[in-house]
Amino acid sequence: MARIVMKFGGTSMAGIERIRSVAARVKREAAAGNEVAVVVSAMAGETDRLVNFCREASALYDPKEYDVVVSAGEQITSGLLAIALQAIGVPARSWLGWQLPVNTSGAFAKARIESIDSEALLASMGAGEVAVIPGFQGVHDGRVTTLGRGGSDTSAVAVAAAIKADRCDIYTDVDGVYTTDPRIVPRARKLAKVTYEEMLELASVGAKVLQTRSVGLAMKENVRIQVLSSFTGDDAPMADTLPGTMIVGEEEVEDVERQLITGIAHDKNEAKITLTAVPDKPGSVSAIFEPLAAANINVDMIIQNIAHGSGSTDVTFTVPSADLARSIETLNQGRAAIGFEELVHDTRVAKISVVGVGMRSHAGVASTMFSTLGARGINILAISTSEIKVSVLINEDETELAVRVLHTAYGLDADEAA
Amino acid sequence: MARIVMKFGGTSMAGIERIRSVAARVKREAAAGNEVAVVVSAMAGETDRLVNFCREASALYDPKEYDVVVSAGEQITSGLLAIALQAIGVPARSWLGWQLPVNTSGAFAKARIESIDSEALLASMGAGEVAVIPGFQGVHDGRVTTLGRGGSDTSAVAVAAAIKADRCDIYTDVDGVYTTDPRIVPRARKLAKVTYEEMLELASVGAKVLQTRSVGLAMKENVRIQVLSSFTGDDAPMADTLPGTMIVGEEEVEDVERQLITGIAHDKNEAKITLTAVPDKPGSVSAIFEPLAAANINVDMIIQNIAHGSGSTDVTFTVPSADLARSIETLNQGRAAIGFEELVHDTRVAKISVVGVGMRSHAGVASTMFSTLGARGINILAISTSEIKVSVLINEDETELAVRVLHTAYGLDADEAA
Repeated sequence: MARIVMKFGGTSMAGIERIRSVAARVKREAAAGNEVAVVVSAMAGETDRLVNFCREASALYDPKEYDVVVSAGEQITSGLLAIALQAIGVPARSWLGWQLPVNTSGAFAKARIESIDSEALLASMGAGEVAVIPGFQGVHDGRVTTLGRGGSDTSAVAVAAAIKADRCDIYTDVDGVYTTDPRIVPRARKLAKVTYEEMLELASVGAKVLQTRSVGLAMKENVRIQVLSSFTGDDAPMADTLPGTMIVGEEEVEDVERQLITGIAHDKNEAKITLTAVPDKPGSVSAIFEPLAAANINVDMIIQNIAHGSGSTDVTFTVPSADLARSIETLNQGRAAIGFEELVHDTRVAKISVVGVGMRSHAGVASTMFSTLGARGINILAISTSEIKVSVLINEDETELAVRVLHTAYGLDADEAA
Repeated sequence: MARIVMKFGGTSMAGIERIRSVAARVKREAAAGNEVAVVVSAMAGETDRLVNFCREASALYDPKEYDVVVSAGEQITSGLLAIALQAIGVPARSWLGWQLPVNTSGAFAKARIESIDSEALLASMGAGEVAVIPGFQGVHDGRVTTLGRGGSDTSAVAVAAAIKADRCDIYTDVDGVYTTDPRIVPRARKLAKVTYEEMLELASVGAKVLQTRSVGLAMKENVRIQVLSSFTGDDAPMADTLPGTMIVGEEEVEDVERQLITGIAHDKNEAKITLTAVPDKPGSVSAIFEPLAAANINVDMIIQNIAHGSGSTDVTFTVPSADLARSIETLNQGRAAIGFEELVHDTRVAKISVVGVGMRSHAGVASTMFSTLGARGINILAISTSEIKVSVLINEDETELAVRVLHTAYGLDADEAA
């Protein structure tokens, strides 16, 4: 017997037939003697419909009222799943954000969960009732809040932390976390375990299995997450025997399971900016980056190129593609203070990252990366590293080649026989 | 300056364009210095969509969860109207049922409003904010309730009572209450005033302008209702000068305004049942009507025909058509106790009612009705009367003729010139 949270996304809740099959899956977990809380998303497409209503009503909508409108999607599916569960003999009830309550910050439309009152919830679950909780919503000062798009993963992890669940099962449209994108490398392997830190690095560079925020919360609260496919039949094995991916603390990964490199991620949503002939003097670097930070633009990789003889230097860095226009505007406004000659930008770049907690104790990860790419003639435009990650910026059209050769070089390819 | 409640139905809220024109109308009332609370329905069709989801999920759905699902429709429109009001410079906020709160009974899916806490609402309105309140919803013991279909009229009247509003304006797809159905009698006149009692009699016999329950509540709480058309342009006059119909207490109707007869209603949703050769002895009548009452079937008109020589009699009465099958089943089960020979039923009947508080002080209303119908050869199958109403049952295909001749006979026809 265990206490588990099950989270289902919008695709799993899209229509009564699918809600019924979610109910069947929940029933099997409850029938096995588990205490179960289910966190649900809105039906696929519903949140978009509600967001569009708000945008149509006013370009500058009040986030407090936006939250009243868009939280309705999860309210609907939570009631419907409770009905579908009761219909197959499983006692169940819905718990809206204001009912538990799920207390959040007052940042409407992008609130953060501060606490969840678990007393009534645990009493109900202890009495054999499945709790159905709409994701994405909470309450602040008596008003409805939402957590920002994709917030239901975070709701699930927060509920799991509040009720000290043994496991938080996230049902999604992939069946786990892979060493890299299987569409690029067919021999990518599904990982049985990945640490929170690795998952954060993999997610933030493009492996969009889970909302990054939910992984950060799981790490902080030490919630064991399992990523599972929602598209298996009624005769699938129970979740605790399913070969999904467990996301856990580093201490849960045995030495024998530990790989040097856990996975390789790629991200094409970066843009490269180069400022040429920036005066090589104190203060010019902060004249570039402080205004960008003030504009809430995340600068990622930074290189200061070899200084020209003239006492000036080229500065190259990356920003999210979505922020490129604002970045250019901000930099041009600061042109006098920075003193650059030209601003050159390029969106046809990709960031390739190798991630693994194992690299902490092994030198040579970065040099393997550089030599492997160099042997294939792939030019490295920029480099950045963290304790468990090495990232390089390359030309976008070399992305797939780079991922493939690195996947082989780090010994991640599955056996041909497998 | 006045304190008013404005209520808009599903057709007025169907889509952002219409919500914007509701906002424009609300703005004009607020700009005139009125304190305004708006009660809204869900978008037309939305409640049906949500009800169908529940039915699909389970034929025997839990009304508590049904309420969670279907209340979402009004939640969405209340947030959207608040956004649309703010977009045109009108301070506004939504107040969900659990936020005010609107306290109801625990009869989920058909709850009754017990009290509305008006303190926060009045403070907000007093500070110049328009209050937008989703109709149809409330809260009981921390869980969402709904009032049953059409409940938003009742919500509006209850809010008006709680905040002691000067007026409750109900915007609907007719522009007022008429002396009779204008589709039958083109010379029907719109009534400037009608009393609660008259409106209840008119509504219960087929003039479906307002939910009956809301009129009963308005009478009890002495809320002045105004029925207005929602389909007038932005240049329409202000609501307090609009020629809608006021529904008020009898004391508000001046003698000079008072008509003998206020209106003529018809209802084709009745069925006639005749039991032949019922033994003419004590107890046989209660053997008929007690089981029907126990089955919650409302018997309306009753006639006991002339006794046969044999000591038996025919008993005729009407029931709602929707309850006919259940009535027949109930009566056949009690056949031995009642002792009737045959059960004859007929759904091709109509009830025609003349209604008016004036008839209290005037004899002759009923005899005018009988002689007018008799002169046209219309056969009267049954009669029932109340203090302010005389109803007759006739053959259904004579409905239109009967309404027309009675409208003329009681002097209700508008001048040709008008």
